[in-house]
Amino acid sequence: MRTRLGVVGTGVIGGSFALAARNAGIVEQVLGFDAEQGVCERALALGVVDRCVTSIEELVAGTDLVLVAVPVAVTADCVRECLDAGAKFVMEAGSVKGEVLEALGTLADNKFVSVHPIAGSDQSGPEAARADMFQERLVVVMDKGSEVLKREAGALWCACGATCTEMESGLHDRLLAVTSHLPHLLAFCYMNVVAQADTESLKPLVGPGFRDFTRIARADAVVWQNIFAANRAELTAQVERFQTELEKLRAAIDHPEVMRESLRAASDKLDVLR
Amino acid sequence: MRTRLGVVGTGVIGGSFALAARNAGIVEQVLGFDAEQGVCERALALGVVDRCVTSIEELVAGTDLVLVAVPVAVTADCVRECLDAGAKFVMEAGSVKGEVLEALGTLADNKFVSVHPIAGSDQSGPEAARADMFQERLVVVMDKGSEVLKREAGALWCACGATCTEMESGLHDRLLAVTSHLPHLLAFCYMNVVAQADTESLKPLVGPGFRDFTRIARADAVVWQNIFAANRAELTAQVERFQTELEKLRAAIDHPEVMRESLRAASDKLDVLR
Repeated sequence: MRTRLGVVGTGVIGGSFALAARNAGIVEQVLGFDAEQGVCERALALGVVDRCVTSIEELVAGTDLVLVAVPVAVTADCVRECLDAGAKFVMEAGSVKGEVLEALGTLADNKFVSVHPIAGSDQSGPEAARADMFQERLVVVMDKGSEVLKREAGALWCACGATCTEMESGLHDRLLAVTSHLPHLLAFCYMNVVAQADTESLKPLVGPGFRDFTRIARADAVVWQNIFAANRAELTAQVERFQTELEKLRAAIDHPEVMRESLRAASDKLDVLR
Repeated sequence: MRTRLGVVGTGVIGGSFALAARNAGIVEQVLGFDAEQGVCERALALGVVDRCVTSIEELVAGTDLVLVAVPVAVTADCVRECLDAGAKFVMEAGSVKGEVLEALGTLADNKFVSVHPIAGSDQSGPEAARADMFQERLVVVMDKGSEVLKREAGALWCACGATCTEMESGLHDRLLAVTSHLPHLLAFCYMNVVAQADTESLKPLVGPGFRDFTRIARADAVVWQNIFAANRAELTAQVERFQTELEKLRAAIDHPEVMRESLRAASDKLDVLR
């Protein structure tokens, strides 16, 4: 039984896993490390971690399970550092997989599992961490690595209230480009259009539709720049599809029948997915 | 005191006003008329209206205040029919104003007020009507028409829990193109991209971000085709801005600094608006 958890990146995902795992009784102590030391100190003050350490070596030495929850661009390096320091079991919880797993190669196959909890918050930092973040959420476990470790990883997330499914990383990145990365890019893009209008005039006219549509544009800029870049091929393909569809819809503004058909098709698809 | 309300279009907005006005004690009886008689019968069964009539003439004869809440393309005709039938006070509650007010000209200035309650639902029909729909919501009263009637209209909506503001219809349409019409078009468009992927694979990966982002794409296809067409000039201008911004963001996927700056600017603007 691994009872000492190390979290690299004490933000919303790392912090939530720390809270959830302790709540579930599967870890007794949580050590935190964050590239921004102030973030770990805030996590400590909030009771999200029990102690902050100042290096990955120190974190690995004091724990028997490490979760890496940092921006995608630095994930592979962080995982490698943990393994080099002697970690026996490392998980990473990023949103894009292909690039990270390619960078790691077969180095880590018997000590490492890559997962993606389909959960999160439009707020960032340990202040947004919640013990129930993964309740009734899906955690995708990448199909790479040892069967024993993948089962162990699945059991940990299940204990935190999630259900698990296994998936190939390329398929994961392709599907997430559609369900998550594209809508985030569109929400940010929409806000850049809104920014061109007079904010004071717009403010009273903002309704619940606007609030829901734009919520994801509050997400962390660094995290999402990382995600967009790491999944550039799949995301670009989806953006191009969107551009084609948008041009069609724009042309349909003057063609009632075409527009109605298109809007109906969109709503119908939504009924299936929500 | 006007105590008998007639509602033309017994869907979510007409039905909600009927419920709210009765709840507030400002009307005693509600007559309904709907081009689709079945919709009025459902409103009757739900207690949203007290009686269904089969013509606008009959509605006007039995009431002393009429709310027109129908798709934008037929709004001006409905208002004119009410006035021709002898109505003394007609309000219309559509989402686009320029085209409707232009079609009506000065015909109605002393019997008619145009308003837009910034409220609604992603569901449609009388089933989605709620007495608290306008609580703490803004109702925009167009600046056209008699001061006395505009004050009376404002008082009615205030009694339903809303606050009112007066606005010129051109400005209204320009601002709503940004805050409401563009995001609806984008949400519908996004769903048409999603529809190209394999639904069964996507379904388990859909998270709360997706759900919030797409909620407005459940809105009624006929209502929104009408809105897009009626506000075509302003909407097209906003779509073009969006296309320009999206092309910029797509190019920025490979430029981390540019992307981060753009995402940060989007989030910052959102903090001001939400």
